[in-house]
Amino acid sequence: MSILVVGSVALDSVKTPFGEREEVLGGSAVFFSVAASLFSEVRVVAVVGEDFPEEHLEFLQSRGVDIRGIQREPGKTFRWKGYYDYDLNEAHTLETQLNVFESFEPDIPEAYRDSEYVFLANIDPELQLKVLEQVRKPRLVLCDTMNYWIENKRKELIDVISKVDIMLLNDSETRELVQEANLILAARRILDLGPSRVIIKKGEHGVLMFSHDSYFSLPAYPLEFVFDPTGAGDSFGGGFLGSLSRYDLIREEELRRSIVYGSVLASFNVEDFSCERLRNITFEDIDKRYYEFLSMTKFE
Amino acid sequence: MSILVVGSVALDSVKTPFGEREEVLGGSAVFFSVAASLFSEVRVVAVVGEDFPEEHLEFLQSRGVDIRGIQREPGKTFRWKGYYDYDLNEAHTLETQLNVFESFEPDIPEAYRDSEYVFLANIDPELQLKVLEQVRKPRLVLCDTMNYWIENKRKELIDVISKVDIMLLNDSETRELVQEANLILAARRILDLGPSRVIIKKGEHGVLMFSHDSYFSLPAYPLEFVFDPTGAGDSFGGGFLGSLSRYDLIREEELRRSIVYGSVLASFNVEDFSCERLRNITFEDIDKRYYEFLSMTKFE
Repeated sequence: MSILVVGSVALDSVKTPFGEREEVLGGSAVFFSVAASLFSEVRVVAVVGEDFPEEHLEFLQSRGVDIRGIQREPGKTFRWKGYYDYDLNEAHTLETQLNVFESFEPDIPEAYRDSEYVFLANIDPELQLKVLEQVRKPRLVLCDTMNYWIENKRKELIDVISKVDIMLLNDSETRELVQEANLILAARRILDLGPSRVIIKKGEHGVLMFSHDSYFSLPAYPLEFVFDPTGAGDSFGGGFLGSLSRYDLIREEELRRSIVYGSVLASFNVEDFSCERLRNITFEDIDKRYYEFLSMTKFE
Repeated sequence: MSILVVGSVALDSVKTPFGEREEVLGGSAVFFSVAASLFSEVRVVAVVGEDFPEEHLEFLQSRGVDIRGIQREPGKTFRWKGYYDYDLNEAHTLETQLNVFESFEPDIPEAYRDSEYVFLANIDPELQLKVLEQVRKPRLVLCDTMNYWIENKRKELIDVISKVDIMLLNDSETRELVQEANLILAARRILDLGPSRVIIKKGEHGVLMFSHDSYFSLPAYPLEFVFDPTGAGDSFGGGFLGSLSRYDLIREEELRRSIVYGSVLASFNVEDFSCERLRNITFEDIDKRYYEFLSMTKFE
């Protein structure tokens, strides 16, 4: 099954309590596609500048990622600079240079328009709507966002949410979107906006998945060292949608298993900077951690 | 199997976003024994003042709780006054009147000294040590504490921890006790102090249980309305130790099930002020919620 992701490709400069890296490969479309490519064929639509190192594109290709949708435009690549304190749940932004990303207009190549699974990574909701206009009847659309769009493009975002199958948010975004402090009530209010499911990422506290008639709660993997949380949400999305597209069955059972695979991928991703850790894991590593999740949550 | 609890009996004045109550029944020994009495025979050692309403003692007796160890002393009963904001995980203390609790010296009645299961509720570690000197070879000792003792009686607390089987803490106490930000590493450091298991309460994020060779993580019950979090930890302890004493098997499997029962009791307790909700639940209610926990966490 084929997966389409539309999002950012970036050069990240990150500092955490455990070290720092300058201008390493990042961006939502990258973390997502590196994770999802362990399961399925992934197609990327994004933009990079003239300065974007060719080796990063070669790396994506080596993972089987279809990069024909990555446009190279005059100017510099999108850059994000930030740091994390000991509370690794919160990213502090020092600098955002949109550069070529500022005028990004997603143009979905004809060969991508029949993609069965679509990930709308965190970009302007107006652009997310344009993506939805171009794809032909995907089996499932997963959508991410951020507090900036909740605050600045609320109407457009609500419109996007009404058109997607699964909305992916973190806990504070969930509360902010519907102005409700209780997370359970907030999730139900988002379901009322249209999607059949809401998935809430709670970082070190795990993940929740809501539908109108089901509820699933998965704790996080017990990591002793979190090197860099950047990309955790997108690698979760990649593991989740990759796994789901491999099952190609959208039922509660496969959705739950895919939540676990998403959590496995996110747990590996945060063990090193950029997507370094995901470069080196095998499916054996993934399955081993999946079974650890099973054993650490099991009771009769 | 018989359970001994040594802790506080109090009159609480509590305000939450959902209402307020003046001088209602509270205290660690109360929440614990009301929860545990649904499973087993419970014996309480605590102190009350001359002003303590007789009806509260009658209520405990009506639950089958053995209250011969509750001493009535000249003076007033221990009082706690506090409030919770929308972040219901954090209690804000307005006033603590120790009253008769200030000179409390736990004197374990001879008939209680053979108790198989012991809960050292949150009291001065020096008093917890005195309890341990008086009981005869219990099968299991569960111990609670709070940040105040970590900061002011650290040496005595470490001594208690080295002598108990299971240490019960919340996440911030865990980090503070061993000065380690990562919760997983912090839990392992506490295991190194002596107990065979550490249980970490994370409020709305669930519970973790660590041993040297196992790890269990249970999410919290998805409550849409939390009326009053007071007593959540102690009703968890009561459900946990009550269930464990009923199994009377201290193995990973029964410990995990007991963590679930503890979480069930805590989830009921926070649905009303004081221990009002626990007064009215039946074992059918408890089992129904146990199976909800099972279904909301299950995957293959």
